[in-house]
Amino acid sequence: MPVNISVTNKPRVVIIGGGFGGIELAKKLSREDIQIVLLDKNNYHTFQPLLYQVATGGLEPDSIAFPIRKIFKHQNNFIFRMAEVLRINPEHNAIETSIGEIEYDYLILATGSRTNFFGMTDVATHAVPMKTIPEALNLRSLVLQNFEKALLTVDLPERDSLMTFVVVGGGPTGIETAGALGELKNHILPRDYPELDINKMQIHIIEKSDRLVNAMSNQSSIKAEEFLKRFDVNVWLNTGVTSYDGKKIIFSNGKQLLSQSVIWAAGVAGASIPGLGEKASFGNRIKVDCYNRVAGHANIFALGDVAAVVTAKNPNGHPMLAPVAIQQGSCLANNLSRLLRNEELIPFQYQSLGVMATVGRNHAVVELPFVKFQGILAWFVWMFVHLMTLVGFRNRLVVFVNWTWSYFSYDRGLRLIIRPFRKPL
Amino acid sequence: MPVNISVTNKPRVVIIGGGFGGIELAKKLSREDIQIVLLDKNNYHTFQPLLYQVATGGLEPDSIAFPIRKIFKHQNNFIFRMAEVLRINPEHNAIETSIGEIEYDYLILATGSRTNFFGMTDVATHAVPMKTIPEALNLRSLVLQNFEKALLTVDLPERDSLMTFVVVGGGPTGIETAGALGELKNHILPRDYPELDINKMQIHIIEKSDRLVNAMSNQSSIKAEEFLKRFDVNVWLNTGVTSYDGKKIIFSNGKQLLSQSVIWAAGVAGASIPGLGEKASFGNRIKVDCYNRVAGHANIFALGDVAAVVTAKNPNGHPMLAPVAIQQGSCLANNLSRLLRNEELIPFQYQSLGVMATVGRNHAVVELPFVKFQGILAWFVWMFVHLMTLVGFRNRLVVFVNWTWSYFSYDRGLRLIIRPFRKPL
Repeated sequence: MPVNISVTNKPRVVIIGGGFGGIELAKKLSREDIQIVLLDKNNYHTFQPLLYQVATGGLEPDSIAFPIRKIFKHQNNFIFRMAEVLRINPEHNAIETSIGEIEYDYLILATGSRTNFFGMTDVATHAVPMKTIPEALNLRSLVLQNFEKALLTVDLPERDSLMTFVVVGGGPTGIETAGALGELKNHILPRDYPELDINKMQIHIIEKSDRLVNAMSNQSSIKAEEFLKRFDVNVWLNTGVTSYDGKKIIFSNGKQLLSQSVIWAAGVAGASIPGLGEKASFGNRIKVDCYNRVAGHANIFALGDVAAVVTAKNPNGHPMLAPVAIQQGSCLANNLSRLLRNEELIPFQYQSLGVMATVGRNHAVVELPFVKFQGILAWFVWMFVHLMTLVGFRNRLVVFVNWTWSYFSYDRGLRLIIRPFRKPL
Repeated sequence: MPVNISVTNKPRVVIIGGGFGGIELAKKLSREDIQIVLLDKNNYHTFQPLLYQVATGGLEPDSIAFPIRKIFKHQNNFIFRMAEVLRINPEHNAIETSIGEIEYDYLILATGSRTNFFGMTDVATHAVPMKTIPEALNLRSLVLQNFEKALLTVDLPERDSLMTFVVVGGGPTGIETAGALGELKNHILPRDYPELDINKMQIHIIEKSDRLVNAMSNQSSIKAEEFLKRFDVNVWLNTGVTSYDGKKIIFSNGKQLLSQSVIWAAGVAGASIPGLGEKASFGNRIKVDCYNRVAGHANIFALGDVAAVVTAKNPNGHPMLAPVAIQQGSCLANNLSRLLRNEELIPFQYQSLGVMATVGRNHAVVELPFVKFQGILAWFVWMFVHLMTLVGFRNRLVVFVNWTWSYFSYDRGLRLIIRPFRKPL
């Protein structure tokens, strides 16, 4: 059954996904005489770079999420529907969704990425991913629930395993999460759980390659490792995961650890949608040309994490980063406008703005196009950039108040188990 | 199996419930040479008077909840355990809980109240209560999910029923919720859902007696009704509910309404725990003497909503209000100290501090011991009192920022469906 959306004689541009790329694209098309239909499973846009702070009790979800309808409240050519897209039928210019069928003149896939467990079903079942707000809230509840459980047991190995946290993946999300757990260990949990020996709390970060944040320079990797050690985090390089059954994690080097909390930050795959055919796939992403057009489809485009712009200069596509998605959204908006006026298209060119990651209070690593630096200045730059790129003035204000409060009080307000992750005790 | 709590030779005082009364009692006992064990299902204290703001998107849960461990972080005679209490065994001075058995020397029931559906199972199944933070979040999701659903249907009576909200109960919670829905109708939802005719959004408040807020004066009732009408709320007095099947609500006067959102704010019952015997019950509360001692038990006490202090002067017990619980907590702390020193006990006397309720922006009704007033001044007094009685400076700061922001922007930030209440569409 078709979805109830007003039918006009204007071209309908359907955008799947309200992430950085999809939002940028829809905003930049505000003056076009078209009908934009944006679809997303959630009614909000998530600012993913700060998800780990929701997971570790530094921020509430409302601070890093923004209602999609509110972003577009003054944009008349825009319609939003909450829906999951199940399949694309390019031959009918239509998509099947959880709320019915929707036809399109132009279709844009901005579906981002999903957690990649590399086929390990036991890890997928027992490890905690951190890609969405409900997942971040699960992790927050898990940490607190494990500490509550640790208080109750008199079985010491069981208690140790409840207080052992393993973060898999040494990218920005991994080091940020491990560092934040280190801060909880140093400043928060000993005050809340004086009955437990906080030295028994072990935090490990596991990285497959030979250095952390390997998208950055060697210098940043070394500093990140040094910073993590200051935050009481054990760093294991050249180590992969082979299995995890909820109690015991086994590593590629044969070693193992007892831990009831394994946090999975080790990889993502493009969140594609069936129906585009084999020609359109590139590893686990969608293959697009330099105009973000999907291989083999004239009126279907893809951008951001899900898309690999494969050109001679970029044989592997661009990194899966917010700035890439935003720049592609902006470029594609321009190209769609040109397409509607039968003008020539402009190829996408990525302008790197730098990369950064924080470990914790006063400790971050930053690489801008012409300068690299680490430590307290990097940390302030990191905070400033994240604060300024948040959507919405109210969100910036609330995050600023929370960060300032935490900085001076060494405290995090948010230690509430609102929705238990595991069954309540 | 006994719970793992260190055994000392000090008297153990077990408090069940971390609401206003239980927290006050534990705090006031901080200097006593005893072992206090506080139990609660949640690891946080809830500031219930502002729950309706969480339900209607004005505040996040972290602003009105406070971690119990944090309240007591400097109190050495205090132990907290997250647990549900299943049964009291007075003959063994022990309680059965979800985490095992706990013995006590003194037991205090501060379990508060739970939603009372007066035996109507269909209403209990389909109406939304608003007594806990997860329930308030459910209501928030429900309002938004119904609007999303209303967009999708072409069946007009179905759409109307999705946009019709019925609040049952004309006490403070009822009028505050209805008023907040009125504000959503006037300022927020029309901007977010321009495709829907906002005039189809109907808000009804249903009250069994002949006036709203009947714990207050007639003058306040009349003003509250007048204020609600300004916020587009239909007021139905002398009207009870006889059934609700999730689609159709039938009233005691035979009238009926199609509504997919019935909010139940019509009554509470004391949340007692089995094991105290028949002598200890007084309607749906626990009968206690003027020292809060449970009838028939020398070392068991009850306070707050769950307790009815039945004396010649107060044949029906005191109202179920936060100030009553706090004052009883304080009085009982003093009496327990006296008991430990074999001194004479002091009878509880309630000092009324007044009652207040708000309808919405610039509209509240306030009754202090010597003065009654309504309108904008009452509204500022209401805000000031609630802000100042919140636990924690950070919470006060965040609430103040949110309220100030909402006041000037006519906006509420929190329109995120984080945990869908009903199955996602």
